[in-house]
Amino acid sequence: MTDLSTCKTLNDLLTLALPDADTEVAEAARTRQSQLTKPPGSLGRLEDLAVFMAGWRGTERPRIDRAQALVFAGNHGICAQGVNPFPQAVTALMVANFEAGGAAINQLSRVAGAELGVVALDLDHPTQDFTQGPALSEAECLAALHRGAAAVDPRADVIILGEMGIGNSTVSAALACAIFGGPPEDWVGRGTGSDAEGKALKARVVAEGLARHAGLAPLAVLAALGGREQAAICGAVIAARLARIPVILDGYICTAAVAPLHGANPSFLDHCLVAHMSAEPGHARICAQIGKTPLLDLGMALGEGTGAALALGVLRGALACHNDMKTFAEAGIG
Amino acid sequence: MTDLSTCKTLNDLLTLALPDADTEVAEAARTRQSQLTKPPGSLGRLEDLAVFMAGWRGTERPRIDRAQALVFAGNHGICAQGVNPFPQAVTALMVANFEAGGAAINQLSRVAGAELGVVALDLDHPTQDFTQGPALSEAECLAALHRGAAAVDPRADVIILGEMGIGNSTVSAALACAIFGGPPEDWVGRGTGSDAEGKALKARVVAEGLARHAGLAPLAVLAALGGREQAAICGAVIAARLARIPVILDGYICTAAVAPLHGANPSFLDHCLVAHMSAEPGHARICAQIGKTPLLDLGMALGEGTGAALALGVLRGALACHNDMKTFAEAGIG
Repeated sequence: MTDLSTCKTLNDLLTLALPDADTEVAEAARTRQSQLTKPPGSLGRLEDLAVFMAGWRGTERPRIDRAQALVFAGNHGICAQGVNPFPQAVTALMVANFEAGGAAINQLSRVAGAELGVVALDLDHPTQDFTQGPALSEAECLAALHRGAAAVDPRADVIILGEMGIGNSTVSAALACAIFGGPPEDWVGRGTGSDAEGKALKARVVAEGLARHAGLAPLAVLAALGGREQAAICGAVIAARLARIPVILDGYICTAAVAPLHGANPSFLDHCLVAHMSAEPGHARICAQIGKTPLLDLGMALGEGTGAALALGVLRGALACHNDMKTFAEAGIG
Repeated sequence: MTDLSTCKTLNDLLTLALPDADTEVAEAARTRQSQLTKPPGSLGRLEDLAVFMAGWRGTERPRIDRAQALVFAGNHGICAQGVNPFPQAVTALMVANFEAGGAAINQLSRVAGAELGVVALDLDHPTQDFTQGPALSEAECLAALHRGAAAVDPRADVIILGEMGIGNSTVSAALACAIFGGPPEDWVGRGTGSDAEGKALKARVVAEGLARHAGLAPLAVLAALGGREQAAICGAVIAARLARIPVILDGYICTAAVAPLHGANPSFLDHCLVAHMSAEPGHARICAQIGKTPLLDLGMALGEGTGAALALGVLRGALACHNDMKTFAEAGIG
């Protein structure tokens, strides 16, 4: 299949033909990097970013004419277990704040030159408490996934993803633990305002959820333990891939959201970058598991796509150098 | 003294009255951070950056209306020792490239919204080979320092500093080793294109220089082992300080350039940030010695101020959040 909208089951996602980066174009971009007026390799990861963008966009000199920032918001039944010190109503209040331009992501999107879209996913209908049953039915999970996919602007040159959802650091720990294994304690952190006791509660809740939903295939894990914003993030990642649009994943919540995709087929994430190393301790583990090194490490743990917006600034710098520097020949050097 | 131009000797610099950040304003900015619509501390270092800017600029909501990028270029007599695979003529060619808009710093300054100024310092008159005598006389060192100071735009809200100079990674190793101690091998790296043999030669040259100029006071080290771009960087740092303009130092070469200032009085660098962790191995040691954690770590080792320009993007993001986010009260949350 090449069309995400024809996927009627989660397993159908596995039949999608995923386009790859154009290695010839990437090679040409790498050659160009070696000709620019700087010592070879001296722009470090900026060089890799330019080559990465060239390969995915299929052009030796890729430009970002349109950058899209997408923030998905959802509510979680697991909050019934008392895993979060804030009420679920905060999710909708923060969505209103995004829409009014008052949140961090509004400012950082503006600075980075990204057009911000906010998708609130059935906030009045939280997922089920995953200690009691599957968080989402397969149909609900697919619906959220398709909403995420539909939000992708096919004209975008790059997409940055973020999220908001009270309780979703617990959901993230459950997803990461189910996909990558290890004790729940390895995956839980303080999230937004939990103390040591709250952290221990989160670990117990994750353990309960995993016991109830043991032995599931990775995409079934997404429905059983995930939430709507997680499914939407997966949908956006896949839709971007089908359009060969690179994606910048924000931090802990976003990378945990796509852990089921990685579990199902690691190459689902070939076109994705990780923006920043979250202060949540589980994030370094996820990054190691998916083999990606975050671009930034600024002690951030806000979500919303804030780290991704900052990383977009680095990407813009990388492409500006790649596209607009003179070569040694042009500058008459050497 | 409060006027740098009246300093007629290097030791006069020690008598300058260095203004401090306004701690009350910084405290007010910290309070504002705690009221913005995000979990406390969740913007990590972005919060610290905003508070830092507020204190130095003396206003609770500091803005960057004018950012200045300064690149200082110099040539070095130490090249006679064969420490660099490239001819010194490349320094002037790269200055021409800066002036023609073809270098990395041109692109990154544009992306970061900084006005670029390039100051070529007597490129036709390299410093002396420091294995044979002092690199600069005190008068030459002061002249370069004053040129750096004069280049500072007093209307700037932030200044990013960079450099260019064939041979200056060896100069940097010598400065760092003289100020912070330890074996020369700890401070030398591959610079631009040196192999293992080249690195060993650099270490021997540094050892020779240190033996010849042992026992000097830190500011005398700047003249004995430094170069004109190093002295100019010191001058710009001091001039910025006197105007309470924060400075973003680029990477290895820039932080080594100000090592003599730190040696003379660590508080000379209170208004300085380090942009990025250079791929040069000595840089982590310098950062540890001056007690500053670089904002970025992208494997870069180009100089020119390229890392500083990227860090300016992060600083702009930090201030956009600080100044323009809504408080919980404004957003009607909590």
